[in-house]
Amino acid sequence: MKIAVLGTGMVGDVIATKLLSLGHSVMMGSRTNNNEKAAAWVAKSGAGAAQGTFADAAQFASIVFNCTKGLNTLDALTLAGAENLKGKILIDISNPLDFSKGMPPVLSIVNDNSLGEEIQKLFPDTKVVKTLNTLNCQLMVNPLLVNGGDHNIFISGNSAEAKAEVVTLLTSFAWKKENILDLGDITTARGTEQLLPLWVRLYGAYGSPMFQFKIVK
Amino acid sequence: MKIAVLGTGMVGDVIATKLLSLGHSVMMGSRTNNNEKAAAWVAKSGAGAAQGTFADAAQFASIVFNCTKGLNTLDALTLAGAENLKGKILIDISNPLDFSKGMPPVLSIVNDNSLGEEIQKLFPDTKVVKTLNTLNCQLMVNPLLVNGGDHNIFISGNSAEAKAEVVTLLTSFAWKKENILDLGDITTARGTEQLLPLWVRLYGAYGSPMFQFKIVK
Repeated sequence: MKIAVLGTGMVGDVIATKLLSLGHSVMMGSRTNNNEKAAAWVAKSGAGAAQGTFADAAQFASIVFNCTKGLNTLDALTLAGAENLKGKILIDISNPLDFSKGMPPVLSIVNDNSLGEEIQKLFPDTKVVKTLNTLNCQLMVNPLLVNGGDHNIFISGNSAEAKAEVVTLLTSFAWKKENILDLGDITTARGTEQLLPLWVRLYGAYGSPMFQFKIVK
Repeated sequence: MKIAVLGTGMVGDVIATKLLSLGHSVMMGSRTNNNEKAAAWVAKSGAGAAQGTFADAAQFASIVFNCTKGLNTLDALTLAGAENLKGKILIDISNPLDFSKGMPPVLSIVNDNSLGEEIQKLFPDTKVVKTLNTLNCQLMVNPLLVNGGDHNIFISGNSAEAKAEVVTLLTSFAWKKENILDLGDITTARGTEQLLPLWVRLYGAYGSPMFQFKIVK
């Protein structure tokens, strides 16, 4: 599959590298062509790896991962272009974390709104699926690293069909289907984005991001 | 121990009844003396159970549970009186849930503040400990009802000594010490109060409140 990874930070690198290892063609997108980190990723990754602008990557792909920082996401996706995102699945794994007032961060969109919803409003012809935004990026692509893979992620989106496709992709990352909890439409992203304030404090308490949430009944 | 339970709703009833069963003297406090629900609780509970105003209950007790609705909490505690709460541990299990705009609720205090902090600011001479605010009240007093008791609650507060006392009380509810995660000072209540937006959506997805969060590593 042709997949775009928007964002050249650690999350983008980890996701893009995982997708490549699974045999996908991956274009890493950034604000400018030949971004230093994107070029370095292509150089280390070899066949199947490419880079370009956000627009190049969105146009290239049938599925787009948003791995930009939450505060930059709406700008980045605007640069990617509504036409290039039209009809496609956008997997949003970002969080609207604002570090400008110090640690721990606050959320720039919160409570009666979410970044997931803002993206969906801005790109009504794109199928936004929010997932993977509640855990460390190493665990996103390798859930087996904690508790034998037995823990949960959440999925939010208006299109059941798009969510099903994303679940299939996630199972290729070794996520068990039953551990991916469908919360409902994109407004349920409010729930998962607001998990971050607890996540950062647990990170503080443990001194490590290698933990996960498991829902027990 | 003499314990006040402020609030006559389901949460107050469950907590007060559990405390009574453990041999404590419990006074249920409400806005008015002889509140119908408080009187009914005393009538069904017998020896050790009493009721009165918020102020009566706070004055009577050495430990105070806040089980009022989050939107009413600051008013209720003001009625309880700073003098009556002075030097005491206040266990805050409320959440600032605002149902006025429909379901699911939003938070009336959120992001860079929390109800726990607001209480601590308003009563600087009281040791506010936030805990038990992330699960159904039946599970608060009987953690064994799900997953053999193996799941987590959180605790936030500025006084390590007060938190240790609360942990001891919680272990009498059958909580294992290692399952009570100390997040730090009262500002960490932001993390647990903002877990509620996910909690309500999981409740919606499962159709039952009998689930819990477990942190796995």
